[in-house]
Amino acid sequence: MMRPFRSLISLEEALEIVKGAINPIARTEDILISDANGRVLAEDVIANMDVPPFDRAAMDGYAVRAEDTYGANQFNPMTLKLIDVVRAGEISKKKVGANECIQIATGCKMPPGADAVAMVEHSEQCESKIKLFKPVHPEESVSGKGEDISAGSPVLGVGECLNPSRVGTLAALGIQKVRVYERPEVAIVPTGSEVANLGCELKNGQVYDINSYTLSAIVRESGCIPVKFDVAPDNYEDVRNAMVNALKYDMVVFSGGSSVGESDILCDVIQELGGILFHGVQIKPGKPILFGVVRDKPVFGIPGYPTSCLSNGYRFLLPAVRQLAGLPKRKDIVVRSKLAQRVVSTLGRSQFLTVRLEDGFAHPVFKESGAITSMADADGYVDIPANVDLLEKGEEVDVILL
Amino acid sequence: MMRPFRSLISLEEALEIVKGAINPIARTEDILISDANGRVLAEDVIANMDVPPFDRAAMDGYAVRAEDTYGANQFNPMTLKLIDVVRAGEISKKKVGANECIQIATGCKMPPGADAVAMVEHSEQCESKIKLFKPVHPEESVSGKGEDISAGSPVLGVGECLNPSRVGTLAALGIQKVRVYERPEVAIVPTGSEVANLGCELKNGQVYDINSYTLSAIVRESGCIPVKFDVAPDNYEDVRNAMVNALKYDMVVFSGGSSVGESDILCDVIQELGGILFHGVQIKPGKPILFGVVRDKPVFGIPGYPTSCLSNGYRFLLPAVRQLAGLPKRKDIVVRSKLAQRVVSTLGRSQFLTVRLEDGFAHPVFKESGAITSMADADGYVDIPANVDLLEKGEEVDVILL
Repeated sequence: MMRPFRSLISLEEALEIVKGAINPIARTEDILISDANGRVLAEDVIANMDVPPFDRAAMDGYAVRAEDTYGANQFNPMTLKLIDVVRAGEISKKKVGANECIQIATGCKMPPGADAVAMVEHSEQCESKIKLFKPVHPEESVSGKGEDISAGSPVLGVGECLNPSRVGTLAALGIQKVRVYERPEVAIVPTGSEVANLGCELKNGQVYDINSYTLSAIVRESGCIPVKFDVAPDNYEDVRNAMVNALKYDMVVFSGGSSVGESDILCDVIQELGGILFHGVQIKPGKPILFGVVRDKPVFGIPGYPTSCLSNGYRFLLPAVRQLAGLPKRKDIVVRSKLAQRVVSTLGRSQFLTVRLEDGFAHPVFKESGAITSMADADGYVDIPANVDLLEKGEEVDVILL
Repeated sequence: MMRPFRSLISLEEALEIVKGAINPIARTEDILISDANGRVLAEDVIANMDVPPFDRAAMDGYAVRAEDTYGANQFNPMTLKLIDVVRAGEISKKKVGANECIQIATGCKMPPGADAVAMVEHSEQCESKIKLFKPVHPEESVSGKGEDISAGSPVLGVGECLNPSRVGTLAALGIQKVRVYERPEVAIVPTGSEVANLGCELKNGQVYDINSYTLSAIVRESGCIPVKFDVAPDNYEDVRNAMVNALKYDMVVFSGGSSVGESDILCDVIQELGGILFHGVQIKPGKPILFGVVRDKPVFGIPGYPTSCLSNGYRFLLPAVRQLAGLPKRKDIVVRSKLAQRVVSTLGRSQFLTVRLEDGFAHPVFKESGAITSMADADGYVDIPANVDLLEKGEEVDVILL
């Protein structure tokens, strides 16, 4: 399956290969619903009770027997006897008989005998008599027991992602804990003898590990748990050891070590333990990305240059970890803007162009793959397709927010 | 400042009032950059080092003295003596003299003497001789020390929200901890004698507390910490006590207790301790929303019906807590869809219409403010302006995802 490095595949083809190689996580855990927003249901939720749990008033008004109101109009009101007043949270112990009514607040349980609520707006009170100027039909302004959700009916299904309204739905059913898929753990392994762990003094010729932090943030905001490794030096033994340790997790991401010379080690390790599915994609920056499967675990090799890494993080890792977590495809936040300057792209390469949004314009901030300011100044990116080689100044583009 | 309940203000006016009453949090904390994604910077970040920290090769190739390559072309290559090979992470101890070169990997520190990198692609190696077929100019394919970011220059500013690329930027500068604004704490107080805490058995006429869970989820995903209170019964004493306890936090949200009769208690408590800024907005559902300020803390009273609460949560609470956290206005994720059915709205009321996205259509799921299924089935909502009373089946609408 190894592809020679110089034969690049298209972005779309590469994404399809990744998609085909990832199995969503199957492990589950039971968590409190107050922690469940954003998580993915691992069980169908069946209503264990009726909602509402009893017939209740849907309006502030008078609980009546509908038949007692028939014929009422502006000139001939029906007069009912007020026998009780029920405020929020209260229950009447009385029964509504013929030509009687009970004042009731929205949400209160309907008293026995009554089958409708007459609105305050269409009534007049004189001491303990209520005049109604409009008839009501049976069940008017009443939410029937189980009308919204009846016990035993399906409410939410496996694979649904919980949002605030669905968390509220669980509460409505009295559910305190819910079974969700675990957050997958993603090993992030920086490599390169020139890369120093944060907190260490830089030795001559070294730079700090940037990519693990960028990638960890992407992984975390995509519903997974990043497990950051220390920097692995560029040699077979260390890279192989790191790989073996990293395979304990659900996915493995190496950063650095996938460009021409360096990539040899990671390639060799992947091929010894598993297989490479592609190496090199028609994108810019980030071309030398490497993807394979080792012991059923997807493994990425992402080039070390920070903007290449950022670009691969959004284009490949983000959809991959969301799929792993059982989350739907990310819905990008897109801001339509005008380009502040002309942009030349490379035919045959999908370009990930970082931009800053300012004064309603998208200002390209990409300098070169190694530049940190290409990242620091970026609010989002413009995806320039492989068949486009020029975007004019002032042209409208979709900026996908980071 | 008290407005009579029946005089409703517009949604826009109400949102302006809320905006004017909120002061972004000033408390700060120092956190690890690995925890800082999504947080708001409380300090300017000034580069404490040059990036790159040394002159480095921007390409794989040969470190040369540019002047030695002048005049090279396809037919008359310049021949240089290869005196060393520097792989990633290595440093050459040699100096490049006249007509000498050192093989160098991308990212490596430039050896003394050399001022440019000649690309491998334009060269040929014969044992320890390198033939170059193209001249290079000084600094070609070299990233100069501090060229990207020079020590002492500003990199990120107070108030910027950290995203993965900005977290990576901090790492590039060797920064391990960063000062951010604390996440504000928002007290969420369910009220109503008919409301039971989750985990308690429902008494006759009771329903479970739904709204604290919905609102907590919205608060948490908007960069704040929800502090959920137990249900406060509908009486002056209990509501006042809850208010006094809740005022320890940065914002207070009461749910339930803001519709006609019930609202009296919360209104009275707010007026005793502070002031009401509005009560009642031209929206549907959620009209009886109440907003005031007590001891400099913004206080919301959100109606108890679950969909009213959800709607107010997105329309009022979400922008308010983001402002409190120092976060920019939420960039909504919008999906343009066709309405699956005709929708009648109320003139003079901005409607929050919950919809489910299915088969490319937006299916309205709103039944009534009390219905849980209006929430459970919702993927997003359509904001119908106050001056629109009808949307036709098949009409294109913007669905804002929940």
